[in-house]
Amino acid sequence: MAADPTPYHQLETRFARLGALGDAAGFLHWDAATMMPDGGADSRADQLATLSAIEHEMTVDPRVAEWIAAAEARVDDLDAWQKANLREIARLHAHASAVPAHLVEALSRACSSCEMTWRTARPASDFAAVAPKLKIVLDLTREMAQAKAEALGVTPYDALLDQYEPGGRADSIDMLFADLESVLPNLLGEVLEAQGRRPPPVRPKGPFPIETQKAVAARFMKTLGFDFTHGRLDVSAHPFCGGSSDDLRLTTRYEEDDFAQAFMGVLHETGHALYEQGLPAEWRKQPVGKARGMSVHESQSLLTEMLACRSRPFAIYAAPVLREAFGGAGQAWEAENLYRLNTLVEPGFIRVDADEVTYPAHVILRYRLERDLIAGRLEIDDLPEAWNEGMQRLLGLTVPDDRRGVLQDIHWYDGAFGYFPTYTLGAMTAAQLFLSACETEPRIPECLAVGDFRPLLGWLRQNVHRHGSSLSTRELLVKATGEPLSAKAFLTHLRGRYLED
Amino acid sequence: MAADPTPYHQLETRFARLGALGDAAGFLHWDAATMMPDGGADSRADQLATLSAIEHEMTVDPRVAEWIAAAEARVDDLDAWQKANLREIARLHAHASAVPAHLVEALSRACSSCEMTWRTARPASDFAAVAPKLKIVLDLTREMAQAKAEALGVTPYDALLDQYEPGGRADSIDMLFADLESVLPNLLGEVLEAQGRRPPPVRPKGPFPIETQKAVAARFMKTLGFDFTHGRLDVSAHPFCGGSSDDLRLTTRYEEDDFAQAFMGVLHETGHALYEQGLPAEWRKQPVGKARGMSVHESQSLLTEMLACRSRPFAIYAAPVLREAFGGAGQAWEAENLYRLNTLVEPGFIRVDADEVTYPAHVILRYRLERDLIAGRLEIDDLPEAWNEGMQRLLGLTVPDDRRGVLQDIHWYDGAFGYFPTYTLGAMTAAQLFLSACETEPRIPECLAVGDFRPLLGWLRQNVHRHGSSLSTRELLVKATGEPLSAKAFLTHLRGRYLED
Repeated sequence: MAADPTPYHQLETRFARLGALGDAAGFLHWDAATMMPDGGADSRADQLATLSAIEHEMTVDPRVAEWIAAAEARVDDLDAWQKANLREIARLHAHASAVPAHLVEALSRACSSCEMTWRTARPASDFAAVAPKLKIVLDLTREMAQAKAEALGVTPYDALLDQYEPGGRADSIDMLFADLESVLPNLLGEVLEAQGRRPPPVRPKGPFPIETQKAVAARFMKTLGFDFTHGRLDVSAHPFCGGSSDDLRLTTRYEEDDFAQAFMGVLHETGHALYEQGLPAEWRKQPVGKARGMSVHESQSLLTEMLACRSRPFAIYAAPVLREAFGGAGQAWEAENLYRLNTLVEPGFIRVDADEVTYPAHVILRYRLERDLIAGRLEIDDLPEAWNEGMQRLLGLTVPDDRRGVLQDIHWYDGAFGYFPTYTLGAMTAAQLFLSACETEPRIPECLAVGDFRPLLGWLRQNVHRHGSSLSTRELLVKATGEPLSAKAFLTHLRGRYLED
Repeated sequence: MAADPTPYHQLETRFARLGALGDAAGFLHWDAATMMPDGGADSRADQLATLSAIEHEMTVDPRVAEWIAAAEARVDDLDAWQKANLREIARLHAHASAVPAHLVEALSRACSSCEMTWRTARPASDFAAVAPKLKIVLDLTREMAQAKAEALGVTPYDALLDQYEPGGRADSIDMLFADLESVLPNLLGEVLEAQGRRPPPVRPKGPFPIETQKAVAARFMKTLGFDFTHGRLDVSAHPFCGGSSDDLRLTTRYEEDDFAQAFMGVLHETGHALYEQGLPAEWRKQPVGKARGMSVHESQSLLTEMLACRSRPFAIYAAPVLREAFGGAGQAWEAENLYRLNTLVEPGFIRVDADEVTYPAHVILRYRLERDLIAGRLEIDDLPEAWNEGMQRLLGLTVPDDRRGVLQDIHWYDGAFGYFPTYTLGAMTAAQLFLSACETEPRIPECLAVGDFRPLLGWLRQNVHRHGSSLSTRELLVKATGEPLSAKAFLTHLRGRYLED
């Protein structure tokens, strides 16, 4: 007769089920963004809400708490991965059980409603239209943050941050962002000056047929190492990388008169996908086999897009391939010109269009505002003014309207407070990882110049992907680069690319 | 304070959740058939198995039995739809709780494995390769049939039949099929003789560009009444109608040198879809709001395809539209020729290619064989011989190999015993409904000739679709046509179309 399963194995069984439900929801989200006709929206919302409710119930089930306690009491019976898995399970359980079901549901409904209103308020530049709903979202988020803070023993903002960035704390972010802030304004001035001394790069002229853009995107995805037996590329209004790690669904959107936006977007999402495809196969169904957190995830997309694919070596490889695919000719298609286009620095109002020199300012602004919102030091009615003041101070720009200001990002309207800092943590992590990769494998740049991504991908597989969530973000970075996260490598990268180059 | 929910309302909440989970699974099945890369198969199987296991647990939950008993004790508090819903809920609960979870799981695994083997055994015509796995499937199915038979108080075969055709019983099917068998062999001879007296119809010559075929298919779907804000048309190896009733996912497959197969396939699936789109909106989340059963479902696809779209009036409408779309010319594109092509009778080995005169023989053969298999009167090793004898007796054909014999259909290899008779019950139901529709709305044929499906669809909405599962199959048919199902209308239709016409 088979022995009874141990409490730890009960947890594995439960969380494998939860993982499968999460994957199922991932495909339903992908379908909603890419395939679903409008008339399916209401019942899709029902399906997703049902899956969430079941996931929540299965996670907060009192037996899970008992199994965790029993497994922790006999933690020496577990191997290193099992121990790490138990830690992740306990973390997920703590987050879920901190919040009463009625609050989860109320917040979910408030976010759906607010996001829906935001979709029309943004193009109309009408903050007042969405403010009442955003207030409800903020009130409920504060309540949730407080509940999680008490359960986790951290501040309310850190409790929100921890959802996206396990172990992330505002104190460390403050120091890292202060380091950036002490350097970036002057650096930006120097970069713009250096850039002004060169003739401006020329944009290749379209039209760029969408079918050709799709074929080019797929070709580069394969070159980067994306496995199309485990994923697809489709079209959605907002590009993302979804699905499950065995079946990644990338999306982008195409413009006939500009191939670069979709192209760079696909390379960015491919970075996310390569991370997922490199997660440890034998642990994928367990929490420890999932991606570490949003800053590591974003580091993989930014390393791929910013460090690798906006580099000069990549332009040398890509220029003739793109020229031939689009039947282009002339100076606009030369590698050096494409490189200059891909590294053009232009302060602007919109975060998602920002270059890597000005991007941190966008994130720092949002980070400070959302900390004040959660702490009760700032209220929704004062938010647009605070936003505009921040843009003036950080980038010297006068925001002309809320569409190009406080209304531009979906995050807060969808309840995602604590997410923004992971973008810039990811950028710093990317630079630090890329520097270490190039120190270990000095031929990475020359390989990029001939379209050979294997040395880079090999290093990432070995030093990042295969660890899943078995290490903390900090442990992972120390192990891969020899030191914890700092702004050093990121600033070195910016100086090297934008001043000396 | 809100009153506690009644037991009946507890059931509604539970079954709304189950409905949403079932819909979620429907989209994951659709995705697997249309979009999923091969590498996603294993984790998709996990997702679907997890959803099934949760659905099973939520259905057999002892509280559900208590709620059912309590609701039945106070059934007079319920309105007619609620009463019908309670009946459906009790039926679903009885089916699910008759079978122990380990048997459900073992059968599910055996079916997956057997079906996988069948996929290669069929093209290789290698019955021996799949026979051991089919034996396991049959053994477990017999066990399940026995368990359900005891719980439902019916025979084991009827218990299987009841899964697809609620209330269906082999005794009635025997009588209906005997009526067909006493007429069809002679009728087939007369039809072939009559057909032989006419010059053979001419097939339009391709190629028929796939993009044009898609556009034509979508155009006719709209003409028939399909609402594209609540559905899509895509490509899969085996055509089906999936998704949920708010978001129907139809599929077909296209051949460049023959448009008729995909075209007729789409019209067939559109019939299924129109039924789903016509189900009562306010009850869709409950069991009573679902389609009645497989014979009614198949009646809707066959009525649309066979009765409406293979009729002479439809050919009059469709011929010029098709001719123009494909740039065709000449006799092959004349309405009378297309009509003759669409009603060509040719006895053959393959059920899915069969015309409506010979189709019942295919079904009767499978029905008799599967009854014997379930009753233990026939074993797997003797199945190919029994199949071939049956084809000789029923259609006078000598089966050349198992690929064109016992291996042709997925059903048994996937564990679907008790399904086959619903095809021919559906054909008879379709004829009986169409006859009544034309009696009530005599302009239906002339409307079809100008592409106006509204009178027909209106009648179906009123007399079939809006009832959901609130009536039994028999009640529905008596209410719509004045009498229970018989072979009369079907045989009248065949004689009218194939002998007098």
